[in-house]
Amino acid sequence: MRVDVVSIFPDYFAPLDLSLIGKARTSGVLDLAVHDLRSWTHDVHRTVDDTPYGGGPGMVMRPEPWGAALDAIAPESADGPPPHLLVPSPVGRRFTQEFAYELAAQPHLVFACGRYEGIDQRVLDHAATRMPVTEISLGDYVLFGGEVAVIVILEAVTRLLPGVLGNASSLDEESHAHGLLEAPVYTKPPTWRGHAVPEILRSGDHGRIARWRRDESLLRTASRRPDMLAALPAGVLDKRDVATLTGAGFQVPDGDVAK
Amino acid sequence: MRVDVVSIFPDYFAPLDLSLIGKARTSGVLDLAVHDLRSWTHDVHRTVDDTPYGGGPGMVMRPEPWGAALDAIAPESADGPPPHLLVPSPVGRRFTQEFAYELAAQPHLVFACGRYEGIDQRVLDHAATRMPVTEISLGDYVLFGGEVAVIVILEAVTRLLPGVLGNASSLDEESHAHGLLEAPVYTKPPTWRGHAVPEILRSGDHGRIARWRRDESLLRTASRRPDMLAALPAGVLDKRDVATLTGAGFQVPDGDVAK
Repeated sequence: MRVDVVSIFPDYFAPLDLSLIGKARTSGVLDLAVHDLRSWTHDVHRTVDDTPYGGGPGMVMRPEPWGAALDAIAPESADGPPPHLLVPSPVGRRFTQEFAYELAAQPHLVFACGRYEGIDQRVLDHAATRMPVTEISLGDYVLFGGEVAVIVILEAVTRLLPGVLGNASSLDEESHAHGLLEAPVYTKPPTWRGHAVPEILRSGDHGRIARWRRDESLLRTASRRPDMLAALPAGVLDKRDVATLTGAGFQVPDGDVAK
Repeated sequence: MRVDVVSIFPDYFAPLDLSLIGKARTSGVLDLAVHDLRSWTHDVHRTVDDTPYGGGPGMVMRPEPWGAALDAIAPESADGPPPHLLVPSPVGRRFTQEFAYELAAQPHLVFACGRYEGIDQRVLDHAATRMPVTEISLGDYVLFGGEVAVIVILEAVTRLLPGVLGNASSLDEESHAHGLLEAPVYTKPPTWRGHAVPEILRSGDHGRIARWRRDESLLRTASRRPDMLAALPAGVLDKRDVATLTGAGFQVPDGDVAK
């Protein structure tokens, strides 16, 4: 996968040299380039912003450097389909694990990192005439700029690329993979500061362990994220699951139970 | 505000030297220390993880280094209230702008960054016997570890600390501050690549500009985030707002209109 990132803070992306993202870059699974937006300015101050039309606080990013950056990264004359332009913004589509899977299947992503009050709207309007453009939001909170959102999105997407995680079954058991939160985890020592590992996890009985984890997962989801439980597709919960939930006093939405 | 971060990747936090977080640290508004979890290991390999009890893929972080780290950062013998321990995790409470305000009002936060399959559950159970503990989730997606989540949370929280943003009214107009998405922004030049700035923003008529922004904000929220519109407290929308929404074909929830 090819990824281009444009930002006025290219140094921000130091974390992308580390850990499994760094390894994905070294192995060639992820071909990532970070560009300094200011290299597409032409004045001595390398200006990227100006005051907003209509007044109000803060500064808005001017369209010219962004237009030039996108022309260079995704030339109109290029063969093949254009890249997908992603603009982190609190007004964007909510980023989810499902969205991460969609992005992991694409050949070329371009991220535009806004700062200040945001990027002039015309940059997005113009880009949308020749490539897919998606504003994308990590969640309902406000950041200093798009940079850290790009790192989040690249972590979530990179770990889905083939060969990045050593053991593919880690993907299968994790939170949000099946619409449920994951059960708590334990390792050695068996007792620590008076807290013992649940006996069942040390029993070696794989059927009972799987059932315990499923129950913990169901109860955690029901108590912490009832919205996720309500959003489960029909048929995900079996009769045993429903017994676990109702036995603990939780209500199970009608129609969710497999026949 | 004092913040301690514990991680096996202390280099990940280079972005916290940059931009307005860097300035907040220099000015003393944010007193941030990043600690290497491995400095609390005692074996030659500086081991922090082991296989999960009950089997399954991946590794789990052992409790001993975490216990020692928390003992050092938040000694039981310390005067005053203990810090608030925050553990980024996909099973946690959803991070929101409201939560950012709550955290911005606290004197001391400690972040524990899990990696692999997570931290042994007993670390949280034990810590909860002597300090507030909150698992916190950026959104419904899975990352390589807690590090980037901590940067997100610190950006959202730091910008709410007194004196960090130059112009406090930036906070008041931004997305999520009032439960609505912000209107699009524009700056010079007035026409760029055939796209003109909306005439009204160049009119100088502050009343009409404010109304235009409010309408754009309402329509954007209704089309992109109907969940946010539905969640508005009663009285946020006035009759003029309702006319804008219904005129564009959106339904307005009953009871939302100010008398």
